[in-house]
Amino acid sequence: KQIILLPGDGVGKEIMESAKLVLNTVASEFGHSFTFHQHAIGGDAIDQSGTPLPEDTIKACKHGDAILLGAVGGEKWDSLPGHMRPEKGLLGIRKELGLFANLRPVKGFTPLLHASPLKEDVIKDSDILIIRELTGGLYFGKPSERRENGNAVVDTLYYHRSEMERIIDKAFQSARLRNKQLTSVDKANVLESSRMWREVVNEKSKDYPDVTVEHLLVDAAAMKLITQPNRFDVIVTENLFGDILSDEASVLTGSLGMLPSASVRSDGVGLYEPVHGSAPDIAGKGIANPLGMILSAALMLRHSFGLEEEASEIEEAVYNSLEQGYHTPDLHIKGGKQVGTKEMTKIVVESLT
Amino acid sequence: KQIILLPGDGVGKEIMESAKLVLNTVASEFGHSFTFHQHAIGGDAIDQSGTPLPEDTIKACKHGDAILLGAVGGEKWDSLPGHMRPEKGLLGIRKELGLFANLRPVKGFTPLLHASPLKEDVIKDSDILIIRELTGGLYFGKPSERRENGNAVVDTLYYHRSEMERIIDKAFQSARLRNKQLTSVDKANVLESSRMWREVVNEKSKDYPDVTVEHLLVDAAAMKLITQPNRFDVIVTENLFGDILSDEASVLTGSLGMLPSASVRSDGVGLYEPVHGSAPDIAGKGIANPLGMILSAALMLRHSFGLEEEASEIEEAVYNSLEQGYHTPDLHIKGGKQVGTKEMTKIVVESLT
Ligand SMILES: CC(C)[C@H](C(=O)O)[C@@H](O)C(=O)O
Ligand SMILES: CC(C)[C@H](C(=O)O)[C@@H](O)C(=O)O
Repeated sequence: KQIILLPGDGVGKEIMESAKLVLNTVASEFGHSFTFHQHAIGGDAIDQSGTPLPEDTIKACKHGDAILLGAVGGEKWDSLPGHMRPEKGLLGIRKELGLFANLRPVKGFTPLLHASPLKEDVIKDSDILIIRELTGGLYFGKPSERRENGNAVVDTLYYHRSEMERIIDKAFQSARLRNKQLTSVDKANVLESSRMWREVVNEKSKDYPDVTVEHLLVDAAAMKLITQPNRFDVIVTENLFGDILSDEASVLTGSLGMLPSASVRSDGVGLYEPVHGSAPDIAGKGIANPLGMILSAALMLRHSFGLEEEASEIEEAVYNSLEQGYHTPDLHIKGGKQVGTKEMTKIVVESLT
Repeated sequence: KQIILLPGDGVGKEIMESAKLVLNTVASEFGHSFTFHQHAIGGDAIDQSGTPLPEDTIKACKHGDAILLGAVGGEKWDSLPGHMRPEKGLLGIRKELGLFANLRPVKGFTPLLHASPLKEDVIKDSDILIIRELTGGLYFGKPSERRENGNAVVDTLYYHRSEMERIIDKAFQSARLRNKQLTSVDKANVLESSRMWREVVNEKSKDYPDVTVEHLLVDAAAMKLITQPNRFDVIVTENLFGDILSDEASVLTGSLGMLPSASVRSDGVGLYEPVHGSAPDIAGKGIANPLGMILSAALMLRHSFGLEEEASEIEEAVYNSLEQGYHTPDLHIKGGKQVGTKEMTKIVVESLT
């Protein structure tokens, strides 16, 4: 399997090393062969070649079987014009590869739940999968421009029915593999695009009679994620709503540094990255939490390579390490032991072998 | 002063009676004269005359000095086509009257904070004012239609610079009267409209050198509202982001039924309504919480009539009633006494006199 590594900016490089180590361990334990190809993206690529998404990075990604991304962005590049910003690299790769489905699992780790901003009885037993449409909507619709001599502006929320269908199919399929409860989020009392979204969900639901569907307005969803997070199973929504709700959900468990994400398309090709950012303030210090990246690698094994057992082993190893009390400085475990990026990785690797 | 009452649907009628009683008490205590004119809106208006916003309601609102709204909507009208839905009445009145600034204060009440989904040390000392642009953006932009033989759809996010300027001015002015910290929320790393929004905020900030400004991406804002709600003073954002974030914020204190809102324009005319909905399940039972509506009437006295002392008296009376332990069934106070809508109102009125 050809794996493209895009470490990117900030802590990206350090945590990518952790993922490589873990994948190499899995490869030798299970007799697989993974080949890694490293390329530049984001601010790193801007510094090297003046563009956040160089041609050879795109080319490599198109030939790879899966992509691991560290993180992009940082203050250093914040004053650059829009098309030259590190984030453009991320948006570009999603669009170029057609990675239309963003999967964001949110699940607490018992030893870490005390760090949740929510009361323990509110957050406990929450296990949510947010599925966000990733290549359409306001993010990419045209026109997106100034008007009336610069005195007005438009962005366009455009969706083709087929774009809705494929993400909604993905969501029903995912719900089938879980608790068969699908919550579709829209703003159908205001937006025409949401009314069409709701129609497509209702049509598709006929193909999945075993899955229960509910519709929730995005404002109500933003409330219920906080008041009753454990009422959700799978949530599906369009790009911008998904951006907001998945980030909102990511802080509920109190351990953002642990959360992985996957951006996939139908044939299994996918990009995997931790939910946390590039954290320039701690970059290079050897203290970044590698677990979100490692769990992203596990998602890659599961979703792109169909290696369910191997993925579960990694997840187990991460759980075990936390249960033994090991954690990086961003986390806290009562009576636990604080370690750096490398040591944390070593503990996971040891638990794997 | 001419006050237009739009009780609307569900519990709207009951809580509107409470507001009237409180306002009449204030009128006689302070020697004011308020005249009330009641009109239909929402589902109520649909039942009476087939449209959620009858002409004579619009006309009355245009002639009134301020408007009190109960709540609109309910399952009964949920299957009607888009233009006939109760919410259209609300959107219509905002637009017809040019009520461009939605003010959503979020502040906990000490006797009720234990009901917050957040840990007490996370939510305590939070005091946020969210200012949402209310008459522009995706809610009203054209085109908003099906395309390509019904196989595609567009909505349009349109803003004129002047629409941005007036809401941002309002936000700076509000921040000045509070802790002088303004957080502007956008998605400038993706949307052209957000980049223009950020420019306008930066330009305007020169006129308010005493106010500190920060920019926050909407996804980050959705996170920080939960993890650090007490870091915020005034938040300003466009219509859709404001819809999501203000509802998200409204559940943080654990007493949604208490929260008022104001929708105003520059000359002081405004519409005031509680944040909670029409709650059809408890309508007519005499148990609805009237405090959100009563506090909305207080906001009306402050923002539309400049009656600061009278507004504060009402707010004091509400606090006092809670501190004495009185509460409706939606709330819980340790060792408190549960009462219905009328009794709760009576207690507030007594505390006023
Ligand atoms: C960096 C930004 C463009 C991106 C997005 O909004 O999609 C990020 O917030 C994310 O969610 O991956
Ligand atoms: C009813 C709906 C159209 C409305 C909105 O989205 O503006 C409501 O959610 C609100 O926030 O007042």
